[in-house]
Amino acid sequence: MDAVRIGVCGVGRIGHLHAENVAKSIGKAELAAVADPIRSLARQVAKDFRVHAYAEPSEMIRKEKLDALIVATPTPTHVKVVETIAKARLPVLLEKPIALTMKDADRIVSIVNKTKIKFQLGFNRRWDPSYTKAEGMIARGEIGRPLVVKTCARDPQPPPDEYIKQSGGIFVDECIHDFDVALWLMKHPVKQVWATGSTLVYPQFSKYGDYDNAVAVLQFSNRSMGIIEGSRTSMYGYDLRTEVLGDQGQIRIDNWKGDSTRLWTKRGTLDDQYPWFMTRFAEAYKREIGGFCDYVAKGEMSPVSAEEGREALRVALSARESARSKGPIELKTVSESD
Amino acid sequence: MDAVRIGVCGVGRIGHLHAENVAKSIGKAELAAVADPIRSLARQVAKDFRVHAYAEPSEMIRKEKLDALIVATPTPTHVKVVETIAKARLPVLLEKPIALTMKDADRIVSIVNKTKIKFQLGFNRRWDPSYTKAEGMIARGEIGRPLVVKTCARDPQPPPDEYIKQSGGIFVDECIHDFDVALWLMKHPVKQVWATGSTLVYPQFSKYGDYDNAVAVLQFSNRSMGIIEGSRTSMYGYDLRTEVLGDQGQIRIDNWKGDSTRLWTKRGTLDDQYPWFMTRFAEAYKREIGGFCDYVAKGEMSPVSAEEGREALRVALSARESARSKGPIELKTVSESD
Amino acid sequence: MDAVRIGVCGVGRIGHLHAENVAKSIGKAELAAVADPIRSLARQVAKDFRVHAYAEPSEMIRKEKLDALIVATPTPTHVKVVETIAKARLPVLLEKPIALTMKDADRIVSIVNKTKIKFQLGFNRRWDPSYTKAEGMIARGEIGRPLVVKTCARDPQPPPDEYIKQSGGIFVDECIHDFDVALWLMKHPVKQVWATGSTLVYPQFSKYGDYDNAVAVLQFSNRSMGIIEGSRTSMYGYDLRTEVLGDQGQIRIDNWKGDSTRLWTKRGTLDDQYPWFMTRFAEAYKREIGGFCDYVAKGEMSPVSAEEGREALRVALSARESARSKGPIELKTVSESD
Amino acid sequence: MDAVRIGVCGVGRIGHLHAENVAKSIGKAELAAVADPIRSLARQVAKDFRVHAYAEPSEMIRKEKLDALIVATPTPTHVKVVETIAKARLPVLLEKPIALTMKDADRIVSIVNKTKIKFQLGFNRRWDPSYTKAEGMIARGEIGRPLVVKTCARDPQPPPDEYIKQSGGIFVDECIHDFDVALWLMKHPVKQVWATGSTLVYPQFSKYGDYDNAVAVLQFSNRSMGIIEGSRTSMYGYDLRTEVLGDQGQIRIDNWKGDSTRLWTKRGTLDDQYPWFMTRFAEAYKREIGGFCDYVAKGEMSPVSAEEGREALRVALSARESARSKGPIELKTVSESD
Repeated sequence: MDAVRIGVCGVGRIGHLHAENVAKSIGKAELAAVADPIRSLARQVAKDFRVHAYAEPSEMIRKEKLDALIVATPTPTHVKVVETIAKARLPVLLEKPIALTMKDADRIVSIVNKTKIKFQLGFNRRWDPSYTKAEGMIARGEIGRPLVVKTCARDPQPPPDEYIKQSGGIFVDECIHDFDVALWLMKHPVKQVWATGSTLVYPQFSKYGDYDNAVAVLQFSNRSMGIIEGSRTSMYGYDLRTEVLGDQGQIRIDNWKGDSTRLWTKRGTLDDQYPWFMTRFAEAYKREIGGFCDYVAKGEMSPVSAEEGREALRVALSARESARSKGPIELKTVSESD
Repeated sequence: MDAVRIGVCGVGRIGHLHAENVAKSIGKAELAAVADPIRSLARQVAKDFRVHAYAEPSEMIRKEKLDALIVATPTPTHVKVVETIAKARLPVLLEKPIALTMKDADRIVSIVNKTKIKFQLGFNRRWDPSYTKAEGMIARGEIGRPLVVKTCARDPQPPPDEYIKQSGGIFVDECIHDFDVALWLMKHPVKQVWATGSTLVYPQFSKYGDYDNAVAVLQFSNRSMGIIEGSRTSMYGYDLRTEVLGDQGQIRIDNWKGDSTRLWTKRGTLDDQYPWFMTRFAEAYKREIGGFCDYVAKGEMSPVSAEEGREALRVALSARESARSKGPIELKTVSESD
Repeated sequence: MDAVRIGVCGVGRIGHLHAENVAKSIGKAELAAVADPIRSLARQVAKDFRVHAYAEPSEMIRKEKLDALIVATPTPTHVKVVETIAKARLPVLLEKPIALTMKDADRIVSIVNKTKIKFQLGFNRRWDPSYTKAEGMIARGEIGRPLVVKTCARDPQPPPDEYIKQSGGIFVDECIHDFDVALWLMKHPVKQVWATGSTLVYPQFSKYGDYDNAVAVLQFSNRSMGIIEGSRTSMYGYDLRTEVLGDQGQIRIDNWKGDSTRLWTKRGTLDDQYPWFMTRFAEAYKREIGGFCDYVAKGEMSPVSAEEGREALRVALSARESARSKGPIELKTVSESD
Repeated sequence: MDAVRIGVCGVGRIGHLHAENVAKSIGKAELAAVADPIRSLARQVAKDFRVHAYAEPSEMIRKEKLDALIVATPTPTHVKVVETIAKARLPVLLEKPIALTMKDADRIVSIVNKTKIKFQLGFNRRWDPSYTKAEGMIARGEIGRPLVVKTCARDPQPPPDEYIKQSGGIFVDECIHDFDVALWLMKHPVKQVWATGSTLVYPQFSKYGDYDNAVAVLQFSNRSMGIIEGSRTSMYGYDLRTEVLGDQGQIRIDNWKGDSTRLWTKRGTLDDQYPWFMTRFAEAYKREIGGFCDYVAKGEMSPVSAEEGREALRVALSARESARSKGPIELKTVSESD
């Protein structure tokens, strides 16, 4: 197959990065066009990559001969954009979270199921070398049966107020990555979630019923456990770690960066930290595009399906509900594996 | 002052270690005698260190000219032994936990307060170089205001059934160390605890209403948070870690051992793990004795008071209650600092 | 300035990588054409990147409107290719080492000086984030005055016999990177070199008067020292480390990779190693292209000049000579800085 | 056997530490007396440990019923003290280096061989858990055949002038530990040594023909190599590392300390360093005493023989000679193993 011709919808921070990665995936992908309702933004990005700019995905689909789309528009628009793409029967890579409500998530799952379009959700950890390696090790039984998964995701600064307001809150916006990681690594649905949060540093979170630090404790259907910690107050840099305790060993994904320079002085030894997730996941975002192109070209099962996105959202929303109601929430699962 | 003459009550695993450390604390402490109702054990240990053996603490106190006692008898006997020692108006270093019930803890606190004897509780982390350094750094404000404390304590194998039965359960027996660490590092009382546990590997824990993996989420009076994880199923060795996120930085106490030999082969690089807490805390147990001798000799405030032991127990018992009732438990604190 | 149109001469392993990096440097560079006397190879690479293929650099220069060239042809051809490029007055990025003999190195330096073409030598460590950071720290005085530089470069397997034969030997082929690093970090010329080598694993090296393990000890003009170790027998993976001891501290560049997954089992904890320098320097090779494009576009001083390439070669050849003669070699330097 | 009754000759820094370790080795060793020509020092130490003080070893031997002696007197006195002890047919643990000259070393070897006394040399790394583990791994073939050994020993400050003057120089005083480590790990005699040194920070070293930074390159009889680096200018703390490259892997002994507390702030992450060798080898010095007691009690082969001390000294003196003569030195070995 020739390079996959891709149109990118939404070229804000992540959409722009996707466009760039597509443009650089020579031989595999080809950036065909970009669309963004903010026309000046669309035009600027289009100019950088020498492609056409559109305001509306529908127009871009009509005028460009696209093989696939990447969608990085604001979450509340996901249903509408996916609908448009599904009508054109085109494959789509949709940024996380799948939606902000279970209702919207269900609509996307239903669209995908009805139209049978290829659908992949944008959970970047699924493509990070450390995470994929860990997943493989667990799948090969190197730590035996997984018992406890612990994740920690800490952002170095809070998002802007406008973003907080419409983000769905820390569980839906930040921890959803880790809920997905937990579900992906533990291979069982979540049966119960208990969560709590505090606003300790940035009062603006309280205004929107959100927290700057939060924790959710998961119980999976097989009684294994999950401890999910999220923070917006990590002054020392972006800090992302995951560990799985199995009945034969442990896997830890730590936060060490590729740069291994270390300074030793009287004060001690000093390492740098990751400044931000864009650095941490630069490689993963590239692999994600590559994986999507393979999927588009060879038609396998979606690497990250709509159902998986819906499931992570369900845990996130339950966590938010638990934090509010101050009690544990039971999740009813349609198909529990045990 | 001359070396502190110490009698050790209870010379099982920890009591024997204490006796040895006292015997080796030349110039500071002197092992005077040992007492254990298991006479053959008392005699054996006494012979090793060339001191007298007794069955009863009371007899040892009467016959030996003691300056202080160390008590490492089974937890249910703590009240009675402390009573005996308090009658003799002697200082005491009591192994953790202070008791298995709040009632017993209150009795010990009351005895100590009434008789004004010097009392120190045996929380080994308080004397570990990593922990004392971290506590000092936090106290000096190096991470700013503490927001979240996370601890992880994983034992490489389960204790014998007999021990499980009378241990008070994973929260009271294992996690109490970490509840104490959390209280000590965060400097605020716990307002709410929510806990849960699973028996995932060793069915015997279920028999006694106990768990082999557990987690407790704490909310301190100032809304900062604690995540306490305990496990009995760490096949790869003893794993003990603590971290505190502050609003200016983070401190992590990791599990690296002094032995820094590392093997590099085609398979990757390989480090050893700590086999057991006796290795991990060998130095701390020695410092603990030294700290006790200083306290006995110079009469300062107890480095680890009965009230502190009571407070950690209260959190542990609340955690156990939360795990059973499946809901959060509010702790009423007499004197909240904010 | 528009994207720099680049032609690549020699598309073997490194030349191919350069071509790919150019092709992906969207907006900054543009791959114009490739040339290789092995026509099938040239055609294949050209097809991958949708550019024209040539057998000869001269023809490529004549027919394509090039802004600059990258040369990754075999080292003995360097003089001739640089001559061709210099005639066209085009900028050139030349792969290391500059040449195999001082005579050839001098000719290249002389061509560059006479024609005033922009010339940059391809030392990849100069663009590696760890190395550039370390260099910056030293330049800012963070370790005070540099006293001792130590480097270690270990390849996981020997090159093919054909390559060994014409490589110039371990000092000129492998250690020259580290001689350059040492000169770059220590900022003084080398006054004396003493070197030795052994063939311990692969007898084929002896056949060509080469070694599979070697060490060179450098004395710089200010009496600071260098210890350069090279190996072809690193069964556990590619291992590259550098450290500089200063009179106020130390900087170490270790070999930790970006992938931070770690396995903990009964056997200990296990990390992966870097498999190969292409992984280790993937990012550096991209930055090298970027740096070259900046240089071509804005006409600054060469980031890695012909003189610098000549100087590293002089140390490498002296090291080879020292290993053969079994005594120290004094280097006469035209302009010693002290 | 009962506890070994030990007399300590010379109670300066190391002698005092040995006395203390003996006193604390309850059940295994017993401190019987101390001797030091500085009478006030002898008396002070004796008082600390409640034993008798002597000026002369001979008197101590005569008056005390000793089982063994530890000698930590200045190196030039070693021959005389060992002679005295040998006359009494007592076992001896002698501090490193065995002597400052080959003549003195030969006399000690000869005394030991003639009188058949038990003799153990005090190389502390032989008892360090990291080093003994590494030695065991190499002996078990975990890295295959050893090819290259590299050591690095860096002191945080220079010794006093008086000490420098009579120390024998950096190769004999500091690097001799590493020459011994190299001989011990590589299991072959050294055939050639080439060394060089510089005085870069402390001019006083030049006054005595000594260096503050030095390197020696060893060639073993089987052509494997050694790179030995010593420094007196490590401002960031005591830094001791050793690595062995084998034809199947590598072992590295790094310098990480037992204290694993780590601070993470905006500036990066910060670890402490070892302040000094007394901290680094606190445990090794204790094990050394234990090993000596076992040897005294059970009469096995000396863990560190006089011949081994002589061999390390021979390499050290050859290194010093090489640094002075600026050329490689060939060592004639009586019994080369290959």
